[in-house]
Amino acid sequence: MATIKLHGNPLSTATMRATASLYEKELEFQFVHIDMKSGQHKKEPFISLNPFGQVPAFEDGDLKLFESRAITQYVAHGYADKGTPLISNESKKMAILRMWIEVENHQYDQAASKLMWEQVVKPIYGMQTDPAAVEENETKLGTVLDFYEKTLSGSKYLAGDYFSLADLHHLPTIHFLMNSQSKKLFESRSHVSAWVADITARPAWSKVLAMSFSDMPYGTWLLCGPQECLVVFDSGS
Amino acid sequence: MATIKLHGNPLSTATMRATASLYEKELEFQFVHIDMKSGQHKKEPFISLNPFGQVPAFEDGDLKLFESRAITQYVAHGYADKGTPLISNESKKMAILRMWIEVENHQYDQAASKLMWEQVVKPIYGMQTDPAAVEENETKLGTVLDFYEKTLSGSKYLAGDYFSLADLHHLPTIHFLMNSQSKKLFESRSHVSAWVADITARPAWSKVLAMSFSDMPYGTWLLCGPQECLVVFDSGS
Repeated sequence: MATIKLHGNPLSTATMRATASLYEKELEFQFVHIDMKSGQHKKEPFISLNPFGQVPAFEDGDLKLFESRAITQYVAHGYADKGTPLISNESKKMAILRMWIEVENHQYDQAASKLMWEQVVKPIYGMQTDPAAVEENETKLGTVLDFYEKTLSGSKYLAGDYFSLADLHHLPTIHFLMNSQSKKLFESRSHVSAWVADITARPAWSKVLAMSFSDMPYGTWLLCGPQECLVVFDSGS
Repeated sequence: MATIKLHGNPLSTATMRATASLYEKELEFQFVHIDMKSGQHKKEPFISLNPFGQVPAFEDGDLKLFESRAITQYVAHGYADKGTPLISNESKKMAILRMWIEVENHQYDQAASKLMWEQVVKPIYGMQTDPAAVEENETKLGTVLDFYEKTLSGSKYLAGDYFSLADLHHLPTIHFLMNSQSKKLFESRSHVSAWVADITARPAWSKVLAMSFSDMPYGTWLLCGPQECLVVFDSGS
């Protein structure tokens, strides 16, 4: 009997991030679909779970959380004995992992989310991609990935030789960017490219994608106002 | 003999955040002053500590970290037996605390940093504050603080009835915004106002401020290029 509930939209990057952690931990959970087209994320009962009106929200018994990276961390710590470890028991290894969580959050995601907006979201709306914004953010992301390349030349994963939350948090944006011209940034760096191939091949990630594309045909929910979809891709973090 | 080294600038919000955690933990540490005016943060040896060229960077023996919120978390976990606890041992309380760390990071700081840029940094450069940007971000911050007000009406601090990293992470931006017109956003909410008074009165925070204003007169290091100071206030997270 699942006590865990994840409220979200299967195509939101933040929802996908949280879902991936639940699949990695092999936990049973109830997925409560939030229809963003009709603005369910801005109304009760969802707004009582996340006052900022952003998917996902999470419940485990009486514990209620939002912010995807807080949800994944709770799942990893709270269910340490299940599935993939995702974290380390050693203080210094955890410190490195937390640093990588912040690097994804502040360095990688800043550029990656803007590239998604320009190349994935705008075309669906019939809005024009701004080539200058793409160029600017590809340069930024390239600088970030140079550091990743160096790191991954010394360890298989970002925070060491184990798959962790630091890697998992990247999966949703990598998935969308690998379907855009920006995939060259990942493919042109051999260690980054091998890392992308490795982490996107994980069975837990396939389950997340299967959920997205069977239940919710691509584009359906994106036919909402621009504000809604900025929420989906950019700030539901 | 201090094995901890913090490399940073006493007036950078990210440096102040990390420094506050060290003072709360009553740890000895060596503060390595990074002269941002001359661009030390963009050159060796600093760039080997943080390839993104942003203060602060941190060393504890052979452990090297950057990203202020990763540093504070390491300090709190790694020195759990010293000074103020700053974290909880209970899984669900830690989950709430991590959620608040993300709320500060994604909701509060997004608006607060922009308000600082407009009202604190721009005037020092002789640049003109954009009233529309101030208004927009004051509205955003007001919405965030409405949620804080509700939370703080039920508990003394954000993550419960104990001062934690969730509160500490706000201190640097609160300090600067309380010296701007945006202080009205904090003062007009009674629980938020009491919380601000409480957390800014902490002895550890006074030590951070004493360091800033004695060693580095306000404005000195801000006479650098605009790009440098965006780094100081906005992205040295």
